[in-house]
Amino acid sequence: MTDATAVADYVRARRAEVDALLWDLLPGPPDCPLSLAEAMRYSLTAGGKRLRPVLCLASADAVHGDREAVLPAACAIELIHTYSLIHDDLPAMDDDSMRRGRPTLHVVAGEGMAILAGDGLLTEAFHVLAGVNGDPGRVLRAIQLIAAAAGPVGMVGGQVIDLASVAPNLQDRAASPLDADGLAAMHAKKTGALIRAAAAVGAVLGGGDEAQIAAIDTAGAEFGLAFQIVDDILDVEGDAAELGKSPGKDAAAGKPTYPAFYGIDQSRAMANACIARASEALADAGLGESWLLGIGRWIVERRN
Amino acid sequence: MTDATAVADYVRARRAEVDALLWDLLPGPPDCPLSLAEAMRYSLTAGGKRLRPVLCLASADAVHGDREAVLPAACAIELIHTYSLIHDDLPAMDDDSMRRGRPTLHVVAGEGMAILAGDGLLTEAFHVLAGVNGDPGRVLRAIQLIAAAAGPVGMVGGQVIDLASVAPNLQDRAASPLDADGLAAMHAKKTGALIRAAAAVGAVLGGGDEAQIAAIDTAGAEFGLAFQIVDDILDVEGDAAELGKSPGKDAAAGKPTYPAFYGIDQSRAMANACIARASEALADAGLGESWLLGIGRWIVERRN
Repeated sequence: MTDATAVADYVRARRAEVDALLWDLLPGPPDCPLSLAEAMRYSLTAGGKRLRPVLCLASADAVHGDREAVLPAACAIELIHTYSLIHDDLPAMDDDSMRRGRPTLHVVAGEGMAILAGDGLLTEAFHVLAGVNGDPGRVLRAIQLIAAAAGPVGMVGGQVIDLASVAPNLQDRAASPLDADGLAAMHAKKTGALIRAAAAVGAVLGGGDEAQIAAIDTAGAEFGLAFQIVDDILDVEGDAAELGKSPGKDAAAGKPTYPAFYGIDQSRAMANACIARASEALADAGLGESWLLGIGRWIVERRN
Repeated sequence: MTDATAVADYVRARRAEVDALLWDLLPGPPDCPLSLAEAMRYSLTAGGKRLRPVLCLASADAVHGDREAVLPAACAIELIHTYSLIHDDLPAMDDDSMRRGRPTLHVVAGEGMAILAGDGLLTEAFHVLAGVNGDPGRVLRAIQLIAAAAGPVGMVGGQVIDLASVAPNLQDRAASPLDADGLAAMHAKKTGALIRAAAAVGAVLGGGDEAQIAAIDTAGAEFGLAFQIVDDILDVEGDAAELGKSPGKDAAAGKPTYPAFYGIDQSRAMANACIARASEALADAGLGESWLLGIGRWIVERRN
């Protein structure tokens, strides 16, 4: 059930469901200005892997939930991920002009519109989440999980630490070069938290019991860490065509990375260890036969 | 009950409750980076009128709701208002260096931090909202109202229209100079929607019935329009000490304003007409004796 081809088929099918809904999920004219609607869709349809929503749907499947009811929440998480990319790419942040092989939004629409399109995607995500069909208590729990993962103690906080680690003139009195533990903590917030929340939310909205939710939360945290380790490896190994952004940019910017601390081979072993721990947690909760583990392996074995 | 002194006392008491909770509501170290926690609080404690949360609490009172239970939601709306000021002040937007008599956040903390502090406040607002004590269905309805008011069909959309009206090189194919109707529509989104939602959410979370919620929603829309008309008048009449920002800046920037279209006297008459319509709606729903009307008058008669 979880051989690589079957997983690839499963991922492709879920991604198609996500892509189909994402387009229709966002408001358009006359309620929403045309330029804003276009800006949001420009970044949203730039061809991401949809890792977070696919993971969310796989979690719902793992607890035998109603995947269709969870789909809008899965898409809302992708809206949040997309907003974070837009804002991270801004000149005042990472100053990236290319993303997923296309010019970044501020390059084509201006900085003001890029900031607003990000704000719009983030806000609309919570509009979508609050409208999810399901037990209202579980929907509120999902919103809390996602907001915590995306906010000051999660993704936004991680980006602040990341920014401070390369720009010590940023007014962060606590800023100092990241060591290996600091790197892991930063990534747990910046990238890991939302991936983990995507997994947990699928289990919450899918009707999982507390043991299932806890196991999937653990697996989601491991997947998030593995994702970032592999991202760092690909940044060193990749070429521009594969990665869709300038390779070696992080290393060149003096950003701390897993290969820089541990070397490529040990970094890869660390990513595999994440999947092994996730496998154990899932098996203990009777979820070993779900698609989740296969998705974890897909994260580690991906080439972009 | 609603004479000006009593209203001022009521507003002062509610504002104190809001200010007391706002400080504690935001996360701090070690979960949230210190610099981010400081940046968010810098803008949040810059001494705003707290119009939106006070209005929200007055609505809860009007329907005899549990004001204490509504307080976190009222504060969450202020978080969203504060985020919008931070982002609107950025160089890529209105490029304001002063706000409420102090340097704006990007001036003191840098653009990257200002963008992130705004993102953090917006996201944390939904974290707070999802944790509100109350009927889960009503809490979800409140989140939907607020997200719609703050998002692409509301405040963010209004800011896009506003930006396009003074920067026609922004890529808005629909952009053209605003006429009087366009001005009203822009403000209904940019400023009015969140004020209106603040009023409605107080009624929703306070346990109001549908007739009460509808009347308060109507009054909130009128208050939002009156607020903007008076803001435009103050911008023309005010001096820097009173307004805490550069007076006449909107007019100088060629931004459309109510006094520019209608003159000062007619603008003031229009603001009074808003309050009259709100009064009628509230009276029809048996809410004429609430504090809401007094707050409407306070909005129109304020001097800053």
